[in-house]
Amino acid sequence: MDDRLKKQMEFALEIDKEKNIFRQTHLSNHGRNENDAEHAWHMSIMAYLLREYSNEEIDIAKVMLMCLIHDIVEIEAGDTYAYDEEGKKTQKAREDAAKEKIFSILPEDQKNELISLFDEFEEYESAESKFAHAMDNLQPLMLNNSNGGADWREHGVCASQVYGRQSKTQKGSKKLYELTDAIILDNIKKGNIKE
Amino acid sequence: MDDRLKKQMEFALEIDKEKNIFRQTHLSNHGRNENDAEHAWHMSIMAYLLREYSNEEIDIAKVMLMCLIHDIVEIEAGDTYAYDEEGKKTQKAREDAAKEKIFSILPEDQKNELISLFDEFEEYESAESKFAHAMDNLQPLMLNNSNGGADWREHGVCASQVYGRQSKTQKGSKKLYELTDAIILDNIKKGNIKE
Repeated sequence: MDDRLKKQMEFALEIDKEKNIFRQTHLSNHGRNENDAEHAWHMSIMAYLLREYSNEEIDIAKVMLMCLIHDIVEIEAGDTYAYDEEGKKTQKAREDAAKEKIFSILPEDQKNELISLFDEFEEYESAESKFAHAMDNLQPLMLNNSNGGADWREHGVCASQVYGRQSKTQKGSKKLYELTDAIILDNIKKGNIKE
Repeated sequence: MDDRLKKQMEFALEIDKEKNIFRQTHLSNHGRNENDAEHAWHMSIMAYLLREYSNEEIDIAKVMLMCLIHDIVEIEAGDTYAYDEEGKKTQKAREDAAKEKIFSILPEDQKNELISLFDEFEEYESAESKFAHAMDNLQPLMLNNSNGGADWREHGVCASQVYGRQSKTQKGSKKLYELTDAIILDNIKKGNIKE
């Protein structure tokens, strides 16, 4: 096996570990915790199916790939819960170190390409990044809502926290933010999210 | 919420169930069984990273989407192990019924689009289908090989069965079939695959 293919296969095997990084979100029907690989798969399909609601024109292949790879760094850095204020303070430093370590397994050109795509996602500026983030918000919101808001109740999350994160969905899609807002208001009314 | 978005979100929630469809393949480091959503995520990233080895020119976005959705029917039809000869006799009928049921949740245009993509994958004729199948073969082969061929040993799989499936990888990629063949020969030599 030549060196290039060897590196690519080594990376492919390494990312298998993402299936063991569990999130706070639970699967529908009050299932177990979801892992990062499942979350990325789900977001990527949702991005494709909901692409008509993007505010701006997007390269959907780029959005899908962004969704698929955006959590790979968590293999090293671990998952940081959206409302874990302490964890978020060190998140960027942990993820930057992880990014360098994991993507360096790839051949140089692919390392650079994936780091650039990961950075673009994190920067939250391009049309593709904004729509990928909208999926990163909507997918767990949908699951949590389907479970009667159990994840919010468990963590005692309040409305300002949920809006702090979810209101950014409107950067990517005004239409999907209308849906998001309706779901949040309904869960506040039901007492699943603290006012 | 308008009717179109309602259907799209209903489908998005329905496919969450794919995370509960478990395969015979085990995660690396002798981990638990892998589920279909994880497998699809993994294949899709591998397709992107290994696309340079496709025999023919491919639309990589189409391959990735094909990888992501190719097992959705198993939510209804269940997983059929690659070497379950009895199960394979009823697989097509089970999957056809499932396909109609699940994709019908979507708006008509998206139902038709996804059924068409699923059928194209199954027909094994287009360049995209052949490369997606190469990933569908290589991804579990890689995991199983990393675990010392434990899945083959557990099921007492023999070389003719493995070649029966894996030799088709050359339709999508001659280069990746060289790698596949080397892995199979090594596992025969080690006694993990029966001669």
